[in-house]
Amino acid sequence: MDTFAARGYNNASLAEIADRAGLTQAGVLHYFRSKSLLLTSVLELRDDTDIEQLGTERPRGLRFLRHLVDTAGRNAEREGIVRLYAVLSAESVTDNHPAQEYFRDRYAGLRAFVADALTETCGLGPGEAESARARHAANAVIAVMDGLQVQWLLDPGAVDMAAATELVIDSILASLTPPG
Amino acid sequence: MDTFAARGYNNASLAEIADRAGLTQAGVLHYFRSKSLLLTSVLELRDDTDIEQLGTERPRGLRFLRHLVDTAGRNAEREGIVRLYAVLSAESVTDNHPAQEYFRDRYAGLRAFVADALTETCGLGPGEAESARARHAANAVIAVMDGLQVQWLLDPGAVDMAAATELVIDSILASLTPPG
Repeated sequence: MDTFAARGYNNASLAEIADRAGLTQAGVLHYFRSKSLLLTSVLELRDDTDIEQLGTERPRGLRFLRHLVDTAGRNAEREGIVRLYAVLSAESVTDNHPAQEYFRDRYAGLRAFVADALTETCGLGPGEAESARARHAANAVIAVMDGLQVQWLLDPGAVDMAAATELVIDSILASLTPPG
Repeated sequence: MDTFAARGYNNASLAEIADRAGLTQAGVLHYFRSKSLLLTSVLELRDDTDIEQLGTERPRGLRFLRHLVDTAGRNAEREGIVRLYAVLSAESVTDNHPAQEYFRDRYAGLRAFVADALTETCGLGPGEAESARARHAANAVIAVMDGLQVQWLLDPGAVDMAAATELVIDSILASLTPPG
């Protein structure tokens, strides 16, 4: 995780990873087969602690949205994992990147969860989660969390990830909620 | 630009760049000295067309914010430049990246412009641009534009960058504007 976060996938060397783990390169490859399978394993390890993997067990509605704000706040205490995710998600759009499918699927799943939570919180019908506005809003909530990470990594004193995330979620909820 | 966008900086080879430009590597280095100076030149070239460089000539208030929405819309027609920016801004947080200072400065300048435009539009006093809420809002507007780019690059059909940006800006304006 540290090596991928510090260098990105393309620039990470198996030699450095093996060295940090106290293994030979052959030893690393014995467990993970290839650098790209090692990357996938690292991303899956991260996901085990993350809400997007909770599926039907996840909190609903406003509790889900509050959890996103809490996650943004907790992320300010875990620079390594934030950097891993920020670097790899953007690098995944480069040619033939092994995590491209992983991130495409991850955003699709997260988008549906956030759209559900927004429409539930605003008291809209379940069909509204498919509406254009709910989809734009869901994309925007995910985007703001991602974009804040890059700004925060570059200049932690200038960015309060939790406060900015909360401001966007509260503002979007107010604008999606039908008058009255 | 195409090579950095397709591979990121670390993974881009001078050999490929020289080949695409119809030069030898020595020829490229004659003009740009090093791969990192070539990267800086590419980023400066991109900036020449961008509003953040307009300084005091930039549109103010709501016109500035509408320009951000228009830019998000135009970006959907120029995948190469969006990819360049998305890949390099995130890669810049990796160790010893040559564009780290460039992006830190760029976000600081943009943050001030967006905070000014938000407070002007909401009819708040100029001192309000320094308030915590205005700074969170400015960071969020920039973040949403960045984050949408990565989602759009991975799945263009699932993301309307202009519509999602506009929804966030309109929602934030409504929430910053004093009642009455």
